[in-house]
Amino acid sequence: MSSASFSTDVYLDRLSRVRAAMEERGVDVVLLSVGHDLPYVTGYLAMPLERLTMLVLPLRGDATMVIPRLEAPRVVEQPGAFGLLPWGETEDPVELVAKLVGGAQSVAVGDQMWARFLVDLLPKLPSARFSRAVDVVGPLRARKDAAEVAALTAAGAAADRVAAQLHAGEIPLIGRTEAAVSADISARLIAEGHDIVNFAIVAAGENAASPHHHAGDRVIMRDEVVLCDFGGTMNGYCSDITRCVYTGSAPTTEIADAYAVLHASNAAGYEAGRIGNDCQDVDRAARKVIDGAGFGDYFIHRTGHGIGMEAHEDPYMVEGNAQPLAAGHAFSVEPGIYLSGRWGMRLEDIVVATDDGPVLLNHADRSLVTVEA
Amino acid sequence: MSSASFSTDVYLDRLSRVRAAMEERGVDVVLLSVGHDLPYVTGYLAMPLERLTMLVLPLRGDATMVIPRLEAPRVVEQPGAFGLLPWGETEDPVELVAKLVGGAQSVAVGDQMWARFLVDLLPKLPSARFSRAVDVVGPLRARKDAAEVAALTAAGAAADRVAAQLHAGEIPLIGRTEAAVSADISARLIAEGHDIVNFAIVAAGENAASPHHHAGDRVIMRDEVVLCDFGGTMNGYCSDITRCVYTGSAPTTEIADAYAVLHASNAAGYEAGRIGNDCQDVDRAARKVIDGAGFGDYFIHRTGHGIGMEAHEDPYMVEGNAQPLAAGHAFSVEPGIYLSGRWGMRLEDIVVATDDGPVLLNHADRSLVTVEA
Repeated sequence: MSSASFSTDVYLDRLSRVRAAMEERGVDVVLLSVGHDLPYVTGYLAMPLERLTMLVLPLRGDATMVIPRLEAPRVVEQPGAFGLLPWGETEDPVELVAKLVGGAQSVAVGDQMWARFLVDLLPKLPSARFSRAVDVVGPLRARKDAAEVAALTAAGAAADRVAAQLHAGEIPLIGRTEAAVSADISARLIAEGHDIVNFAIVAAGENAASPHHHAGDRVIMRDEVVLCDFGGTMNGYCSDITRCVYTGSAPTTEIADAYAVLHASNAAGYEAGRIGNDCQDVDRAARKVIDGAGFGDYFIHRTGHGIGMEAHEDPYMVEGNAQPLAAGHAFSVEPGIYLSGRWGMRLEDIVVATDDGPVLLNHADRSLVTVEA
Repeated sequence: MSSASFSTDVYLDRLSRVRAAMEERGVDVVLLSVGHDLPYVTGYLAMPLERLTMLVLPLRGDATMVIPRLEAPRVVEQPGAFGLLPWGETEDPVELVAKLVGGAQSVAVGDQMWARFLVDLLPKLPSARFSRAVDVVGPLRARKDAAEVAALTAAGAAADRVAAQLHAGEIPLIGRTEAAVSADISARLIAEGHDIVNFAIVAAGENAASPHHHAGDRVIMRDEVVLCDFGGTMNGYCSDITRCVYTGSAPTTEIADAYAVLHASNAAGYEAGRIGNDCQDVDRAARKVIDGAGFGDYFIHRTGHGIGMEAHEDPYMVEGNAQPLAAGHAFSVEPGIYLSGRWGMRLEDIVVATDDGPVLLNHADRSLVTVEA
């Protein structure tokens, strides 16, 4: 739905680069369904429903999009890129896909394709070896071109404006529930230009120690950390930012000292986001600061994830990922410190690796701002 | 996120019925990830992210939920129903799942599980036969109990209130874009009690001939059909309703006559929604009316889908589905007539099959109401 649209030339170029990657990896055919690999190469985002939409993309020969007949009118055709094969309500789309795959041996399937369709394909393609299409398409999607960086920059600026409203006290906190503040932030993301809101985590006090806390009925009080992690999709590209604020008055020394460590960790991760480093170097740099301050056991997740058409995508900033950073890699740097049952904090920006070093896409105040209301 | 919560007894009972269905179908282990089979048996809806959450449910022995460590605090534990196995950021969760599956031969996987995880499991479970968990859990989920019917009834009533606002002219149409009306309807679904909006199709004039049209920049004019198909999730259960209105003045004879056929088709589908009939009988009854009026080629989709925790789920009202209707089956009846490039119309209600005959969950005016503004 909220998918970027480019000229046909862009899709033809991307398809050509996908085919080059297929050849390099020995992949005969790529199958793309729900998820964002499909719009990356066709401009069309499949509806996540039980009716199968699937692009059958062979190394050589024409690509075909198998699509429910009633959804076919939604597709903007890209001449030369792919053909449409609409199926009727009483046909078996998996059979159509299997015929198009034919005798192909090495079949790469999209990450988020529903497993039911792969289960149905297995007996129809008994000699096929299956692999993950993300290994073919992911490295291409990970390197954003200028238009994509511009879209991410615009989405980041819109999220920054909401963060600034939070800092300015325009989003009242004390006495409201997390859920009410989450709805307020969501409305502001839309008002600032996002097409959809992907998440708006609001976690107060002890709830902030659960990194993916779902905003609930907990009422925000004075003198606590409120963690706000929010983002949406704007013109097909995502924002994602985390800022913590302190309610009522100045934070305690314990909180202020921990936050200083967090802030330094975020800065170290950003600095490490440069060409010549691996993805895991970003994680190591951010983690080293937190480890050094004695909070290592309380930083319980990786430092970041790639971002683009999806809020989470390749490359991941995690120990064990030795993939070298390249120009156009866009990713989050989001260290956190979580003391179970007490408090939590996280500081997140989006960074793009460029030939001139890391570039921040978020500029909202990174300090632990006190919000009085 | 928007998942119903029941007492632990409800989940224990459902797990016991799933195991009985597994035994009947010769399934050794069920794997449930994203999608709604997981919350049906545990109360927990997995986050649709690249970090794997998966319930490993063996026919005998304890069920285990493999879950990212940072998401584990989100789970409401149900003592006796399942254990938690949190995994850290540098562990391989697929390996953990494979160990739990062990030597099981017949493995049923959840419909919406990401294919990437099945691709990763295939080489780790070389002797397993894979099937679809929906064939085990789906028939149980399809038969709603009293609490579930009550939730669907409440969601339907909330959607009806928005339809009534549309009919009353409280949602201005003429001169606004489809997208603006869609946003208006979405806000009203929330105001009437839905937790999330799943879709709000608004399709004017020729756009209504595309059944899954995405509301866009098209400005609504006088003297045309506007098709509105909307629904959301409220306390974990879905609404889904379609009403068409005519703008400005009375519809043309062509439109009025076609709508009379549509209305009769909807009524025939509802009447056929009774125990003793098969699912396909609902489709046949609705289609017969449209065929008889000469519009058969323009009714290009099945008549309906099951509804519950998901907007589309088993059972489907489609030719070829000879499954007998049973008490507690909840489904849509939504015939349509679509003249490509000219106009389209659809009339949709939710119906529950009961021992006392079909019961409508929508009561909004079914006529083609004229909206003057």
